[in-house]
Amino acid sequence: MSTPGTPVLFLHGFWHGTWCWSEVLARVTSAGARALAVDMAGHGLRARRPAAAAARPFDPARLASEPSPVAGVTLDEASDLLVSQVEALGGGQPVTVVAHSMGGNVLTRATQPAPGLFAHAVYLCALMPASGVPANDYIFMPENEGELVVPSLVANPLETGGLRLDPASADPAYRQRLRDCFYGDVDSAVADAAIALLIPDAPAGIAVGATALTADGWGSVARSYVACTQDRALRPPVQRKFIADADAAFPGNPATVHVLDSSHSPFLSMPGQVADIVLKLPA
Amino acid sequence: MSTPGTPVLFLHGFWHGTWCWSEVLARVTSAGARALAVDMAGHGLRARRPAAAAARPFDPARLASEPSPVAGVTLDEASDLLVSQVEALGGGQPVTVVAHSMGGNVLTRATQPAPGLFAHAVYLCALMPASGVPANDYIFMPENEGELVVPSLVANPLETGGLRLDPASADPAYRQRLRDCFYGDVDSAVADAAIALLIPDAPAGIAVGATALTADGWGSVARSYVACTQDRALRPPVQRKFIADADAAFPGNPATVHVLDSSHSPFLSMPGQVADIVLKLPA
Repeated sequence: MSTPGTPVLFLHGFWHGTWCWSEVLARVTSAGARALAVDMAGHGLRARRPAAAAARPFDPARLASEPSPVAGVTLDEASDLLVSQVEALGGGQPVTVVAHSMGGNVLTRATQPAPGLFAHAVYLCALMPASGVPANDYIFMPENEGELVVPSLVANPLETGGLRLDPASADPAYRQRLRDCFYGDVDSAVADAAIALLIPDAPAGIAVGATALTADGWGSVARSYVACTQDRALRPPVQRKFIADADAAFPGNPATVHVLDSSHSPFLSMPGQVADIVLKLPA
Repeated sequence: MSTPGTPVLFLHGFWHGTWCWSEVLARVTSAGARALAVDMAGHGLRARRPAAAAARPFDPARLASEPSPVAGVTLDEASDLLVSQVEALGGGQPVTVVAHSMGGNVLTRATQPAPGLFAHAVYLCALMPASGVPANDYIFMPENEGELVVPSLVANPLETGGLRLDPASADPAYRQRLRDCFYGDVDSAVADAAIALLIPDAPAGIAVGATALTADGWGSVARSYVACTQDRALRPPVQRKFIADADAAFPGNPATVHVLDSSHSPFLSMPGQVADIVLKLPA
């Protein structure tokens, strides 16, 4: 059962899990690649939920104030987990990692001290912060105006330690905002299924971490950026800023840029195109 | 990125999704196999949830009576989906399929008319019904006494068309029953994370379907059964009955039997052992 070729590891973004890659994985593995989706720290089977998220009767004030059970999860922890997942999959061989959204911040941190583990870093409408800048700072930049993540938060991250959504909400306006934020071009039944699989709390600690980048660290790894033009969670101008800033900092190793006319979730709305990009990466 | 060897497809059971295989997939792919977890019809990104499951205020009577949005999903539909997933992954080559729980009924139905698509059928504490017997009948056999699935249902499947759980319940006794049913030997935080990922409704139509089996159909495919001795969802005596009945019906092709001292979810409590069994299957 052994495989030649570069294995591919998929890392989801905040609130998502391995489930979001199902359609992309089906196409990538069918094409012959060895691929694996992994949980980010504090997500999937590692998620911990505030009791208020499923309390009956539901109390919005309690959901707005309950401390997050993932408040202690840091970018270091998330990065260590990713490195261990990459090492296990690669078994000594470099691995291509495809990171979505906040997964990009984890990928950047993991890559910097151990660039040899990574064959290619693919940022799929992902946070790709410049040296020393916390990913969180980009969320509030003018280039990200019009984003719908912050308006969807139901608690103050500075108070709870979590970036908290309310995916179980039955409020039509709130549900529509989540759809617009993440799944604007996704079939509505699939979007509903996806929203129901989101976890309430993402660890704020992962978002506020910054990484000092060097030319022989992160700057030495081949990278691609897949920009999504209809993205309402991470706006196209801030995606272009990530690319421009990185290319300016490491001009000898510019990003290969792909553009998809998709929402923040091309893995659901155009999984074939995402798979094609991954399968055609330089070996 | 091409792979030699037999690809492995993992099919979850009722209420679960691709997420439940994460730890097994990590081990199997790290060992060099090309592997993929897929959603069963009516599950994962194909799930449809009753509105009552997340209604605020919560109304147990409404949850007990709302028709299931997956009432129309049949064993035929589930089998057709699995066949298409197997064909895509294999690309003309036979695929090993590992099916958990009710996934076994889908695997059996898919295998009978197209045995050549399957390199090996692995039933992981799964329903493996005899010719012409609906999977559902086994749930009510004396050999399954002590099972905790039926006591966990919160609606009458004959009325709603769904086998409905209430994974969002905060009732300690109900939550403990779900843990005992599915995750008795799983770390409690992981069990809580898993329960929160369960969907409320599984399609009753998948459970009531039966398949006529022949020696040159299902009976011709190499099969393994992994029996789980602490299983409270599908009791060990009924697991032994599946094996004995199949071996009696197709004595020229008996099952290879493995035994794990696990709950219904060895993919969470002993993923290394599950991966080892899969990796050591005859090629």
